[in-house]
Amino acid sequence: MEIQLRPIGFVRSPFTETAQIPRGVGATHVSEGTIEILPELGEGLQDIEGFSHLYVIWLFHKISGYDLVSHPPSDHRPHGVFATRSPRRPNPIGLTVVRLLERKGASLRVRGVDMLDGTPVLDLKPYLSSVAPEELRRGWVAEVEARSAKGEKRAWSDEAP
Amino acid sequence: MEIQLRPIGFVRSPFTETAQIPRGVGATHVSEGTIEILPELGEGLQDIEGFSHLYVIWLFHKISGYDLVSHPPSDHRPHGVFATRSPRRPNPIGLTVVRLLERKGASLRVRGVDMLDGTPVLDLKPYLSSVAPEELRRGWVAEVEARSAKGEKRAWSDEAP
Repeated sequence: MEIQLRPIGFVRSPFTETAQIPRGVGATHVSEGTIEILPELGEGLQDIEGFSHLYVIWLFHKISGYDLVSHPPSDHRPHGVFATRSPRRPNPIGLTVVRLLERKGASLRVRGVDMLDGTPVLDLKPYLSSVAPEELRRGWVAEVEARSAKGEKRAWSDEAP
Repeated sequence: MEIQLRPIGFVRSPFTETAQIPRGVGATHVSEGTIEILPELGEGLQDIEGFSHLYVIWLFHKISGYDLVSHPPSDHRPHGVFATRSPRRPNPIGLTVVRLLERKGASLRVRGVDMLDGTPVLDLKPYLSSVAPEELRRGWVAEVEARSAKGEKRAWSDEAP
């Protein structure tokens, strides 16, 4: 079973190389960028400006291949790829929560981008609800934080401040 | 530019027909199901049991075609497809937050499924942080709630209770 998709648009971001993107536990994503939806799909954005936050589903377009066990930058222990945000995944799909700042036609200015410039976007969805912090367990990520000097709990978003 | 992906596994859910799945504003998703990851990818689940909630990225495999402007079940007004969770999207990708109840090998028992039985799964990611309710604006969805008899604000998850 093969699944064929196509970009609905592209990200314009300040990042032209992966090394420029903050990574790992505690990384904050406050960079602004633009999501440029293809003009022929622009009508699909009607009323999107009512939402403060959006899910962006996108493609790691510079990645080929994957590792089932991944070594995150912030931990000395390996973890299964599905327990990480590693780009080297069986399907190279990224997911980012961004804050929507402004819409101009088919162009969305957003905060919280962690994608390379030119990244293909697969879908946009409204962010409707959150998991309450007291319900959230964050596995090895929480353990890394507890070991780190900072030690602060980050149950709130570091993705779209 | 075409993008080729393949299932990493399949959802086992109690829903065999779309009509059985609660839809629209205020719908709650408390049904339990199983995400069966392909045995050859099972190693990628290492340490996933430390997380209480997961993002499931999946395919609306029964859908063909899309509408740029969509008529959600809960509103009499049309909205752009990217401002809704309509399945008739340019790329038929679904996104669900589920609570992870138990892992047995490459099988994850979860609560909060809103997919049909047999749905192909494209990716799993750990849910790490939430947008704070006071930062969240929920556009036409909040307007529908305000108009409805219930009128309650649902800034917390109705997806993975």
